[in-house]
Amino acid sequence: MKYSYVSHLYCPKCSSTYSTKDQQQLCTCGSPLLVAYDMEGIKKNLTPDHLKDRKPDLWRYHELLPVEDESNVVSLGEGMTPLVHLPRLGDAMSLENLYIKDEGLVPTGSFKARGAAVGVSKAKELGVEALAMPTNGNAGAAWALYAARAGIRSTIVMPEDAPEITRNEVAISGADLYLVNGLISDAGKIVGSAVKDQELYDVSTLKEPYRIEGKKTMGLEIAEQFGFNMPDVILYPTGGGVGLIGIHKALKELRTLGWVKGDLPRLVAVQASGCAPIVKAWEAGERESEFWHDSETKAFGINVPKALGDFLVLDALYETDGCAIAIDDTEMLREQKHVANLEGNFVCPEGAAAFAAARRLRENGWIAEDEKVVVLNTGAGIKYPDTVDIDPIMLEKGDVLPK
Amino acid sequence: MKYSYVSHLYCPKCSSTYSTKDQQQLCTCGSPLLVAYDMEGIKKNLTPDHLKDRKPDLWRYHELLPVEDESNVVSLGEGMTPLVHLPRLGDAMSLENLYIKDEGLVPTGSFKARGAAVGVSKAKELGVEALAMPTNGNAGAAWALYAARAGIRSTIVMPEDAPEITRNEVAISGADLYLVNGLISDAGKIVGSAVKDQELYDVSTLKEPYRIEGKKTMGLEIAEQFGFNMPDVILYPTGGGVGLIGIHKALKELRTLGWVKGDLPRLVAVQASGCAPIVKAWEAGERESEFWHDSETKAFGINVPKALGDFLVLDALYETDGCAIAIDDTEMLREQKHVANLEGNFVCPEGAAAFAAARRLRENGWIAEDEKVVVLNTGAGIKYPDTVDIDPIMLEKGDVLPK
Repeated sequence: MKYSYVSHLYCPKCSSTYSTKDQQQLCTCGSPLLVAYDMEGIKKNLTPDHLKDRKPDLWRYHELLPVEDESNVVSLGEGMTPLVHLPRLGDAMSLENLYIKDEGLVPTGSFKARGAAVGVSKAKELGVEALAMPTNGNAGAAWALYAARAGIRSTIVMPEDAPEITRNEVAISGADLYLVNGLISDAGKIVGSAVKDQELYDVSTLKEPYRIEGKKTMGLEIAEQFGFNMPDVILYPTGGGVGLIGIHKALKELRTLGWVKGDLPRLVAVQASGCAPIVKAWEAGERESEFWHDSETKAFGINVPKALGDFLVLDALYETDGCAIAIDDTEMLREQKHVANLEGNFVCPEGAAAFAAARRLRENGWIAEDEKVVVLNTGAGIKYPDTVDIDPIMLEKGDVLPK
Repeated sequence: MKYSYVSHLYCPKCSSTYSTKDQQQLCTCGSPLLVAYDMEGIKKNLTPDHLKDRKPDLWRYHELLPVEDESNVVSLGEGMTPLVHLPRLGDAMSLENLYIKDEGLVPTGSFKARGAAVGVSKAKELGVEALAMPTNGNAGAAWALYAARAGIRSTIVMPEDAPEITRNEVAISGADLYLVNGLISDAGKIVGSAVKDQELYDVSTLKEPYRIEGKKTMGLEIAEQFGFNMPDVILYPTGGGVGLIGIHKALKELRTLGWVKGDLPRLVAVQASGCAPIVKAWEAGERESEFWHDSETKAFGINVPKALGDFLVLDALYETDGCAIAIDDTEMLREQKHVANLEGNFVCPEGAAAFAAARRLRENGWIAEDEKVVVLNTGAGIKYPDTVDIDPIMLEKGDVLPK
């Protein structure tokens, strides 16, 4: 039995195919590439029962991942994050079956670790010695740390005002860290020219095909954790959209394998009101989004004015009868408090936006009371020290607490 | 079959026993209380095979935990953290079998979540409506968030200079948060008098008996993850020492069950040179430690001048032929970089101290090259933004990266 049943790469726009044996970036037509597997081979050799004896990390799905030789796996134990029922918050929203999938519990504290684990592993398999990426923070942190474990040199360029904690993570990995007095788009241009000149593997969002495969495992896990029954709705905070694209791909693959049946869950792309290009495109019924000027939100992970994979996100929404919805920062931060107060989850602002979206979609009837709803919290709240208002009472030594 | 085989509480100093049906704090003799189980009952009804179908969280060991009714379990999905081989760091230390047990991957980002999950669950079972604790940060964060999920009101008192991130966690939980212009001992006095006056359940370290049981699961997991073969050495950053006491208790319980055999691993208590009361006591062959004046270290989690359970920690070291060792802050922070550079783990300073201890104990021959060594990383590095030196290169828009 093979470790991976990876078959080839294909372009979802022009249908060109490419080999997984060489380093690939975008299709010649400019589209991101997707990974195909020998699904018949997997069907013959793998059943859900095989998973039971495997470790609770994302490599339990190795047949459906692109790394062919197990010795190339670069893992810090990422994956199989908790899927937890939230009865008290659900009660407050009149949603009986509200769940959190908590991606704060992975190395580097955000779901970016999944993409980095699989992406770096495949880069190692393909002989990459140095990689480079522009980042708003979390992705750079994850890729730099996994690259360190792989012995791959990394060059990370981030805006000067990217969060300090992610900067720390990159610095301590030993990566070459550059701060640019500008936006992630400026960082992207600097990386773009360096890649050409210096033989660096460009791991910008969707410019290499394997990050999606790592993120896909969120979808595989949700299905497995529900005993291979699908939920009705999955809400995902959407910036670059790779997580949502990945979950959609995962569920379609599981359906091809016959492990899940019936309609896919309705996928919901949640954005910030200050940066909502996907929402605007979905509302207009478009297949691609337009660049969102002067974007602004405290949820920096979804501050992405134009995603390279926007058409894949929109496809996922249309195919599953899903929707797109924008939440403003005030509502987002209010919801962050609700979640912590009622359930003890300190979610990131992006995750809080997705909870606020669930609340709104329940209120307007788009979600029914008894539907099974999964909200993805894409990172740990502790990575965002500036989102919490503190109003503690100050005491002196020997003081007595007020009753 | 029962959910829990909890039997009673006993005092390790004077052997008095207490019921687990009522709220208990310390023994009348002043010692912390320990939890006993009906081990014969567990032997008859549970085998390691039963664990295979259970979720990868600490409640998989529910027979060996004190919560009797499953409906009282307050869980955010904590436990079964990764145990990961570190070949590159091991090579640099000439330790072939070096492993990290990574407690950064739990809710609230530190191992304190284990104690809080079990402690709060049992408090709920015992009808507690309000709890209080003094904290240096991480414990307060964990207990406040779990208490929120349980619907229990919490009062948290922390020194003004406790880390901002843990302060945020407490605040967002909705707990009553007080900052004291003093040390944790001053916070402790304020909590102590409030407990008497206001019917609060005192959950200060070891003043309630169930926190140890949560921490114990680290030992259970290490054993299970190694297929119920024990490692040779376990290194633990030691402040209050509850984690080390818990691991010791777990391994003895597994031996009583016959699930593991032979000598227990040698347990190592790792402290900071600026606060090393256990090390001093161990070096002198004492059974208790003395208060350490003017303690100071960047690893605030192990800044505990005198632990209530010091005698239990020292017992664990003597019984297992272990040792105690102090690491200074400079060495600790250097090791933190090594770990990240070579393996991609961004460990907390306390965890880094334990890695530095492994390095030193290998150098002086106390650990042999082929021994199986587990280092506990007790929290996520991202919770300690001040420990990383940043020296990024600044760029302007349109700049080119240096070769």
